Amino acid sequence: MSEGDSEPSVVHPGEAGMRVVVVGAGFGGLKVVRSLARAPVRITVIDRRNHHLFQPLLYQVASAALDPSDIAYPIRTVFRRQDNVERVLMGVVEDVDLEGRAVVLEDGARIPYDRLVVATGATHSYFGNEAAWRPVAPGLKTVEDALEIRRRVLAAFEHAERYPDEQRAWLTFVVIGAGPTGVELAGALVEIAFHALARDFDAIDPRSARVVLLEGGPRVLPAYPEALSANAQRQLEGLGVEVRTGHLAKALDDGGVTLDDDTRIDTHTILWAAGVRASQLGDRLGAPLDAVGRVEVAPDLSVPGHPAVFVIGDLAHIAQDGECVPGVAPAAIQAGKHVAAQIRRDLRGGARVAFRYRDKGSLATIGRARAVADLGRFSFGGFFAWLAWMAIHIVYLIGFRNRLFVVLSWGWSWLTFRRGSRLITGGRRAGWPDRPDES
Amino acid sequence: MSEGDSEPSVVHPGEAGMRVVVVGAGFGGLKVVRSLARAPVRITVIDRRNHHLFQPLLYQVASAALDPSDIAYPIRTVFRRQDNVERVLMGVVEDVDLEGRAVVLEDGARIPYDRLVVATGATHSYFGNEAAWRPVAPGLKTVEDALEIRRRVLAAFEHAERYPDEQRAWLTFVVIGAGPTGVELAGALVEIAFHALARDFDAIDPRSARVVLLEGGPRVLPAYPEALSANAQRQLEGLGVEVRTGHLAKALDDGGVTLDDDTRIDTHTILWAAGVRASQLGDRLGAPLDAVGRVEVAPDLSVPGHPAVFVIGDLAHIAQDGECVPGVAPAAIQAGKHVAAQIRRDLRGGARVAFRYRDKGSLATIGRARAVADLGRFSFGGFFAWLAWMAIHIVYLIGFRNRLFVVLSWGWSWLTFRRGSRLITGGRRAGWPDRPDES
Repeated sequence: MSEGDSEPSVVHPGEAGMRVVVVGAGFGGLKVVRSLARAPVRITVIDRRNHHLFQPLLYQVASAALDPSDIAYPIRTVFRRQDNVERVLMGVVEDVDLEGRAVVLEDGARIPYDRLVVATGATHSYFGNEAAWRPVAPGLKTVEDALEIRRRVLAAFEHAERYPDEQRAWLTFVVIGAGPTGVELAGALVEIAFHALARDFDAIDPRSARVVLLEGGPRVLPAYPEALSANAQRQLEGLGVEVRTGHLAKALDDGGVTLDDDTRIDTHTILWAAGVRASQLGDRLGAPLDAVGRVEVAPDLSVPGHPAVFVIGDLAHIAQDGECVPGVAPAAIQAGKHVAAQIRRDLRGGARVAFRYRDKGSLATIGRARAVADLGRFSFGGFFAWLAWMAIHIVYLIGFRNRLFVVLSWGWSWLTFRRGSRLITGGRRAGWPDRPDES
Repeated sequence: MSEGDSEPSVVHPGEAGMRVVVVGAGFGGLKVVRSLARAPVRITVIDRRNHHLFQPLLYQVASAALDPSDIAYPIRTVFRRQDNVERVLMGVVEDVDLEGRAVVLEDGARIPYDRLVVATGATHSYFGNEAAWRPVAPGLKTVEDALEIRRRVLAAFEHAERYPDEQRAWLTFVVIGAGPTGVELAGALVEIAFHALARDFDAIDPRSARVVLLEGGPRVLPAYPEALSANAQRQLEGLGVEVRTGHLAKALDDGGVTLDDDTRIDTHTILWAAGVRASQLGDRLGAPLDAVGRVEVAPDLSVPGHPAVFVIGDLAHIAQDGECVPGVAPAAIQAGKHVAAQIRRDLRGGARVAFRYRDKGSLATIGRARAVADLGRFSFGGFFAWLAWMAIHIVYLIGFRNRLFVVLSWGWSWLTFRRGSRLITGGRRAGWPDRPDES
């Protein structure tokens, strides 16, 4: 580690130790802080949210199976008992003063650091069509996104019931992008239509709903081994999802999707699971960015030329064996642990070491008792993959209450085929009562 | 029943019986439909929401103890197995064509009826100051209202933590109106500050929060016996609530409340539990309205001069023994049962009978193990009133899942002193990041 040796060993201990500022309390940020629990540092955690969100289950909020609070946990409570966490601030970091070693909040307040960890993640990208596509095709990154998708999906069935003549477009759902999120959403949509709502309507049959999963590449779950992609596609089609690979969306609007071969799919409900773009804070770190805005970090995960600043999680472009480490929770957690170790090395004057991602495998769920697992040596689909998926997600959830409520919700849904959070709330949609709370 | 005899016995059976349209699926509307389960009628239920909301527990959503889906239930699912419910429509009734016997939806669609039940409830009233007061003092009638209150309350503590110099106003909470909702909100606010958040902040002590309960009348819970009001006030003050009776708010703004004696309370969080105004649909029924917009119904709960139309619940002004029947769930339920009975009488050509409200008592909770109960012959406060309150609310909740999850949430909160839904989501507030989901 050449660039890491000179400066960072110059510790600025202040009164009571090195000041570590962690921006973003996702999987990576949390892990850094927890791994520093016994280190002689003074930690400030800054997040624009008051809660850590367990994003892998967010699609279950969007599909009315779980409540937001089942998969979110107050950041303050996570660190309640960790003494060296001096402050947790809800705020937005707008800039980083690399020379002055301070982050700048949205109101101009400066928070000084000796070591900074930036873990602000990613948001959706609409490939340059933000203004036109974002309103008609919500993505899934936040609690608000999930509730908006839930609202649109449930309201589509209500529209179809009121206007049976227009039911074809209202009962068509298009998911764009067949990564894990797109696959999970498509599977969940089919289950809503075929099971949860099947018997609740009079003028329409929800089972006539059409769920289309569009993927520009040649196969679903492009990051998985080919055999698993084929397995996943078979499972999706078995559920009733119409999988269309090798097709890009050319235009999106209120009334539907136009594909690159000029096929038109009439729909009022388009969900976006295609592109991501790294958080804009990456622009402020004076480092080269890759095509999707990720910071190309040094081998120790610091910013080249600024060894006091680390970037981890979906904001980091970590090159390894000629590839980029994937933007998944385990990679963020491993990187968080690594950064905490480097900060401890700095404290005792040791040299930095390079990060190495260990791929322990991937899991994606498709629906009731359907999933695929890629554990390196073993890869398999179906019921056992689904059990593994459930077990791992429960283990990684934070908080006893969240685990209990998720297990109970899953058990109830599994037994009854129903969904516990079928609420249409908030929002505004053309042709629909504006704010439905004024009587 | 003089006015009920002539016209309503002329049944228009159509193909398969009398068409009954029920507008509003609150306590009253649901009861009408359920009580007609075996009647030879064809029922249409119209609500602007897709869910029935258990409003008595809505303050627990506002105070982060429960999730919206714990106290809401899809209307379609309620009636899934009731064969004579022909349609459930999500829509807004904008007008009633009394001559043509049809309701008119927001898109102009007409739904014909032989009997109409209007049960669209009430909303907040700001005594003529809607435009200025509503934005600074949200009321509590809908899921969105509850989530907005939750957001403001939790964000106030976050503001105080970031700006300790301004903490006095951020840690002051004013609840206007000391009916059951105001009392419950005030008690819940104190519990949040003194228990749920007490140890989670660094720069502030949430226990220094000040909760003021303002009441224009001489005592809290004005509809209860005087001894219980005094009991409730003692319990509130024991919790730490500052009760100010005999004071009206003269002006509300972003920075605080000015009382009628020109006292100023600096606060950024004002909650409105003072006035209600009946649903505007009452204007369309050609009947006299009382001062708060309620329809003055005939003794059989029909609209005077229009015996085919009934009004129940918070929209109805039901005179009994020189008083107005209170706007509480039991009264709406009893009225719903009565209207169903009158419709059955119409079917068999019987005469209508007058409604008689039976007051079975009232319960209001104040906080952990604190409540007051007024059961007519018995009235008492404290732990046993609290147990009775919990039992009755669980019994009246709809759905096994909701009951289970509410009981578990209460058990968890009671054991841990914590609140399971501490999420700040949605909304926008001055001085705060606009939409916190863009990074």
